[in-house]
Amino acid sequence: MKIIDARVVISSPGRNYVTLVIETESGVIGVGDATLNGRELSVASYLRDHVVPLLIGREANRIEDTWHYLYKGSYWRRGPVQMTAIAAVDIALWDIKGKVAGLPVYELLGGAAREGVMVYGHATGADLDELKDDFRKHLDAGYKAVRAQCSVPGLSKTYGVPPADGRMYEPASGSLPQQDVWETTAYLDFAPRMMEAIREEFGFGVHLLHDVHHRLTPIEAARLGAALEPYRPFWMEDPTPAEDQSAFRLIREHTTTPIAVGEVFNSIWDCQQLITERLIDYIRTSVSHAGGITHLRRIFSLAELYGVKSGSHGAGDLSPVSFAAALHVDLSIPNFGVQEYMGHREPANEVFHTSYSFENGYMHPGNLPGLGVEFDEKAAAAFPYDPKYLPVNRKLDGTVHDW
Amino acid sequence: MKIIDARVVISSPGRNYVTLVIETESGVIGVGDATLNGRELSVASYLRDHVVPLLIGREANRIEDTWHYLYKGSYWRRGPVQMTAIAAVDIALWDIKGKVAGLPVYELLGGAAREGVMVYGHATGADLDELKDDFRKHLDAGYKAVRAQCSVPGLSKTYGVPPADGRMYEPASGSLPQQDVWETTAYLDFAPRMMEAIREEFGFGVHLLHDVHHRLTPIEAARLGAALEPYRPFWMEDPTPAEDQSAFRLIREHTTTPIAVGEVFNSIWDCQQLITERLIDYIRTSVSHAGGITHLRRIFSLAELYGVKSGSHGAGDLSPVSFAAALHVDLSIPNFGVQEYMGHREPANEVFHTSYSFENGYMHPGNLPGLGVEFDEKAAAAFPYDPKYLPVNRKLDGTVHDW
Amino acid sequence: MKIIDARVVISSPGRNYVTLVIETESGVIGVGDATLNGRELSVASYLRDHVVPLLIGREANRIEDTWHYLYKGSYWRRGPVQMTAIAAVDIALWDIKGKVAGLPVYELLGGAAREGVMVYGHATGADLDELKDDFRKHLDAGYKAVRAQCSVPGLSKTYGVPPADGRMYEPASGSLPQQDVWETTAYLDFAPRMMEAIREEFGFGVHLLHDVHHRLTPIEAARLGAALEPYRPFWMEDPTPAEDQSAFRLIREHTTTPIAVGEVFNSIWDCQQLITERLIDYIRTSVSHAGGITHLRRIFSLAELYGVKSGSHGAGDLSPVSFAAALHVDLSIPNFGVQEYMGHREPANEVFHTSYSFENGYMHPGNLPGLGVEFDEKAAAAFPYDPKYLPVNRKLDGTVHDW
Amino acid sequence: MKIIDARVVISSPGRNYVTLVIETESGVIGVGDATLNGRELSVASYLRDHVVPLLIGREANRIEDTWHYLYKGSYWRRGPVQMTAIAAVDIALWDIKGKVAGLPVYELLGGAAREGVMVYGHATGADLDELKDDFRKHLDAGYKAVRAQCSVPGLSKTYGVPPADGRMYEPASGSLPQQDVWETTAYLDFAPRMMEAIREEFGFGVHLLHDVHHRLTPIEAARLGAALEPYRPFWMEDPTPAEDQSAFRLIREHTTTPIAVGEVFNSIWDCQQLITERLIDYIRTSVSHAGGITHLRRIFSLAELYGVKSGSHGAGDLSPVSFAAALHVDLSIPNFGVQEYMGHREPANEVFHTSYSFENGYMHPGNLPGLGVEFDEKAAAAFPYDPKYLPVNRKLDGTVHDW
Repeated sequence: MKIIDARVVISSPGRNYVTLVIETESGVIGVGDATLNGRELSVASYLRDHVVPLLIGREANRIEDTWHYLYKGSYWRRGPVQMTAIAAVDIALWDIKGKVAGLPVYELLGGAAREGVMVYGHATGADLDELKDDFRKHLDAGYKAVRAQCSVPGLSKTYGVPPADGRMYEPASGSLPQQDVWETTAYLDFAPRMMEAIREEFGFGVHLLHDVHHRLTPIEAARLGAALEPYRPFWMEDPTPAEDQSAFRLIREHTTTPIAVGEVFNSIWDCQQLITERLIDYIRTSVSHAGGITHLRRIFSLAELYGVKSGSHGAGDLSPVSFAAALHVDLSIPNFGVQEYMGHREPANEVFHTSYSFENGYMHPGNLPGLGVEFDEKAAAAFPYDPKYLPVNRKLDGTVHDW
Repeated sequence: MKIIDARVVISSPGRNYVTLVIETESGVIGVGDATLNGRELSVASYLRDHVVPLLIGREANRIEDTWHYLYKGSYWRRGPVQMTAIAAVDIALWDIKGKVAGLPVYELLGGAAREGVMVYGHATGADLDELKDDFRKHLDAGYKAVRAQCSVPGLSKTYGVPPADGRMYEPASGSLPQQDVWETTAYLDFAPRMMEAIREEFGFGVHLLHDVHHRLTPIEAARLGAALEPYRPFWMEDPTPAEDQSAFRLIREHTTTPIAVGEVFNSIWDCQQLITERLIDYIRTSVSHAGGITHLRRIFSLAELYGVKSGSHGAGDLSPVSFAAALHVDLSIPNFGVQEYMGHREPANEVFHTSYSFENGYMHPGNLPGLGVEFDEKAAAAFPYDPKYLPVNRKLDGTVHDW
Repeated sequence: MKIIDARVVISSPGRNYVTLVIETESGVIGVGDATLNGRELSVASYLRDHVVPLLIGREANRIEDTWHYLYKGSYWRRGPVQMTAIAAVDIALWDIKGKVAGLPVYELLGGAAREGVMVYGHATGADLDELKDDFRKHLDAGYKAVRAQCSVPGLSKTYGVPPADGRMYEPASGSLPQQDVWETTAYLDFAPRMMEAIREEFGFGVHLLHDVHHRLTPIEAARLGAALEPYRPFWMEDPTPAEDQSAFRLIREHTTTPIAVGEVFNSIWDCQQLITERLIDYIRTSVSHAGGITHLRRIFSLAELYGVKSGSHGAGDLSPVSFAAALHVDLSIPNFGVQEYMGHREPANEVFHTSYSFENGYMHPGNLPGLGVEFDEKAAAAFPYDPKYLPVNRKLDGTVHDW
Repeated sequence: MKIIDARVVISSPGRNYVTLVIETESGVIGVGDATLNGRELSVASYLRDHVVPLLIGREANRIEDTWHYLYKGSYWRRGPVQMTAIAAVDIALWDIKGKVAGLPVYELLGGAAREGVMVYGHATGADLDELKDDFRKHLDAGYKAVRAQCSVPGLSKTYGVPPADGRMYEPASGSLPQQDVWETTAYLDFAPRMMEAIREEFGFGVHLLHDVHHRLTPIEAARLGAALEPYRPFWMEDPTPAEDQSAFRLIREHTTTPIAVGEVFNSIWDCQQLITERLIDYIRTSVSHAGGITHLRRIFSLAELYGVKSGSHGAGDLSPVSFAAALHVDLSIPNFGVQEYMGHREPANEVFHTSYSFENGYMHPGNLPGLGVEFDEKAAAAFPYDPKYLPVNRKLDGTVHDW
């Protein structure tokens, strides 16, 4: 069953998404997500200009062969642009294979290993009271796991906190990057107090997560991890930049607070040391940024061997196609941990018709053949690309810092 | 001195090059190379669509700040597309700074640490006789170091061997990737014989290099390294894929043959372990694929501490802008080893007017302010983009293999 | 541009400074600092008797070559005397290169990576009340970071505490070394109380530093680090002697208190293990004792890779030439942490005319070409060398201890 | 018994020596060697200007206390200048203590642990025939151990080979450094052939040594070590620069050729890792460059624990005072290996009257009280300081290389 067409569709139904549509000679259509927040067009070009010509005429069923053809055949390997492009192809081919088999993708991956996928939501606030209100809303909605982020007193803008206008949080904005300000001392002072406030209000019966967003040095992260121990966080996410994986050793020596990392990783090599040295507890690689279902399963398979669980990135910057793919993987692997779930800003649902469902804190991908996501190209055309940038972070003295 | 314009020019004077032109309010112009062989348009998009808007209005003199702004500000980090784009900006800004200072770039980097830059050329042949002929031509031309590659008997196509039509070797070709065939046993049998033939013919008074091109497992590479020891190679290049740097430990345990690696690396993290564990002898990262002059110097500085020398990639797939930048770096660092030099197919010289020179096996970047390369945008317009792919490699049974 | 003269000027405008003046055939003059507190004449001899003859006739622009010529050419390597001498040459050559380029040195180093350089001052007192008074004076002056030292009750003299006569603190004094007394138990008992007193009085909104000055064993330092954690020190400086870098592993295992070390280091090898094993958080090597700008950048570049920040020594025993050079480096590197600033006793400013400035806790090197320091040789002649010694420390039983 | 005078005498009886003379109130005089080849005046200044004032009035018998007073009291530690100065004081004080006790120094160190001290001489030649002639002369003179060095064909000058005028080899020469040329490939090609030639001519009944003089990378040294194995060298000396001691691990993995290193070391920390990881077999620290008898015994004591033997530097650039001190140490330690012996160019013996003796390849320090060396200050005055430099080494392309 040969591929006869492959199209890259860039649209912005609520935010920007790059969608790959692969069409086979038998008329089966697969969709993949190639969205790289703030760098969308580069991935679109990678696909359209350099990958699509390789797809036309290929056997759609040879997923493993295609993965290696695109990975090794590019010669210049890895990185977010390439791996997102390969992921889009891979996701679309799995969608096709499911449809051809008449089975939901999770069945091809070994079948359901659990009844549902526990997701965590994002509770945020401009101050502790607002945060507690939002946290309570998540509990009321049935969430068993909630991430808490709050404005840091004294800093004008803080990661993860939505604007006052009540709109859903979306860090990418504007025709130029928003410039945030960072001061580690203020944050280190406040973060334990925030976690304490949540535990005092809601007790220990809910999984409480927190995202550091790469902003600490290892020793600062170690100190924070130790300070958070009384509040028993489910995890401390992205405590320090991870280009040098051995940096996490220092954190690990000082605290038993569980560590999650990986949304910026593109391949198994980005977390090989973190996993094999048991430096983390949750690996957060996403299906669309880490090479698709084919590669992500390899990462989770290695993680299982070392007692590390999955905790995939699932922010709104991945399209519903990615999210559905993540749920299929989550449902099927033995070492599932938790899945991030932010939902998608309208009118995303006019473009992506999904079959996944949320109930009582758990999600399920549904049982339609393939991924269970129908992409409406015509509807997408009504929402043209709207360039946005993620923010850039500077310290008080003007030094560029990790955002 | 603010940047007022930045343009991405894609042209194909002999082969495809992506050139970034940055213009400042004072009229000083800098040029950078953003060529990523076979994936050119993705980098062009990364620059044009996502980076150029960030450059307009920036201070051209703040090179370090700009590097981190682009690297950390992208959020999704590393990989060949992003790092080549950042490199292009960085190279252009160093070009501008040199012109502003009225000094060649190597002077800004600390001044000349040697009189000239030893380069190695590529000798190839369809059989040993042809190889020896070509090797002799290089010696006659003054080369002190020559890389030898030869068709492997029994394999239809071999990396590094030019076509019979006498044209300069260029692996990227065609509107679809050429498919090569690979058989490790045949290669391992032949490679030592090839090296022996060269030494028998030309003796030990020339530096003899060989490129394995990522095709062996570590233990096969260890075996080859040991087999080559009697022929005292200057280096054995890219003996095995390097995503997991610790793979080189196995090679290192078995042979003292010097090891070179790095043309596919994009950042210091790709070689941090290779360098700090002294698993290699030459680091071959290139200025345009490893983040520009700013980042490449960091790599070479780390390498110096561990007794590792430079040996930068310098194939024709980097434009003369990259090559000039490489020579400026080569001339200034303490731990220079050797520089690859393939030259550029005509009519590249109609588009890029260079001031570097070759004499008796050594090169020099010249002494014009900045990089010393003038890019003729009008001439470039006459050579439109001509899509090409690097080859893909398959084993005899059809398995995709590293090319 | 050849060097035609090089002069070593020893003067004591407030305290002793050794200044190297290099003159080129084009009339451009560069200055370097060769001051080694208490051992000034040995460095002066190293320069005047053994290095200056090598400089005459050399190309002033070949900084990298000159560095290695002096370092490797001496055969007997490293140590404070040699590395301070090499640093003086290196600083002077960068000063010249900046003047030739018409750019401040920080521009040659990549341009400003921040708006200003955060400095820390020294608050001291004979008792806690005096210390608090002095601490408040620093806050009133705009400092964002202050180091606290206080007389230890029961010990007659304590490092860092000025005499009662109100003069600026200067440990070097007298024609023979002052003899201090040390008792670790008393110090370990008092230091946490001192830090607690500062935090109680001034809260956590200021960066609070403390210098242990090499006087503890590793396990004592570990104990102190743990005891200081509630007071969140910015750093604990020089907790233990560092000849054997692995000694810091023991401290690191027991505390997350940030560690700073390095004012007595002369080369990257003195801190290679400390940095690559992430045993410290701030590297305090100074431009004039660690081989000049050329070598200091190598140290900071290595540190960047491992998440270690700069925190350069900047006591008054380095001349304003060194201090200006430090500010140029501080402004340009990506991983700047903090800069020590003690200022210089009058009449230093009659001899060294500087262009750096202090405002609201931040400093800037100014924008004159080169380092921006003019050295008035005639004025210097009015302040002849005045031999002084740093103190020597003994324990209560008379054992020589680290001062 | 207080010190009442200390004088630094710089003389050049054949070559430059810096001699420290310490005089006590009881009239006992001790002599120490402070010679640092090519940097003599800097050490002389360190002593005369900064150390001698501290000696006057001190108890001459408190050697251990004085060592720490000078080492820790300087604050800025280590390095060849300081450690040579401290060594001179230490040697002189041991000389005094021996004279006071009426015993040769070796008796104070525990008494003779052997009958004599095996020394090795230097055989050199402009070609293999000359080398063999010189080697034979050494055998005829009774040497049991001989170091072989030979001009490398194709290189104009080679370390260790004397000039054609028949004068004793002395690398320091001229009012500016001689510039040598280096090419590793030529050396690596020739060295095994040289060793083979010696073994073929003289068999295996003599200890055969060779000095690489820091010029190889670790992997090159590993290759040389393996290539020399058939010729069973006593040792391969200084195979690679040793600032980073872990570099020797790589050599050690590839060869069982014994390794000697240390003439450029100044302290136990320079070889702590080399010894404790058993990366070397002979530690070549010298009494006058490594802190004197007090500190050298600590180094040899650590070495004993790890099966490493002594092999002290004993070139003519150390005065007869140093050499006598070395023999006293050699005679007394349990883990003596071998002692280098070059002798001293006349008229050194007019200035230094020694009591050590050579017989049948072995030496003995004699049995006079103290070191057994009388320094004739009046004779010394006839031979004023004659500035000389050690050579500087450059590779063929002009890069500064380790000499």
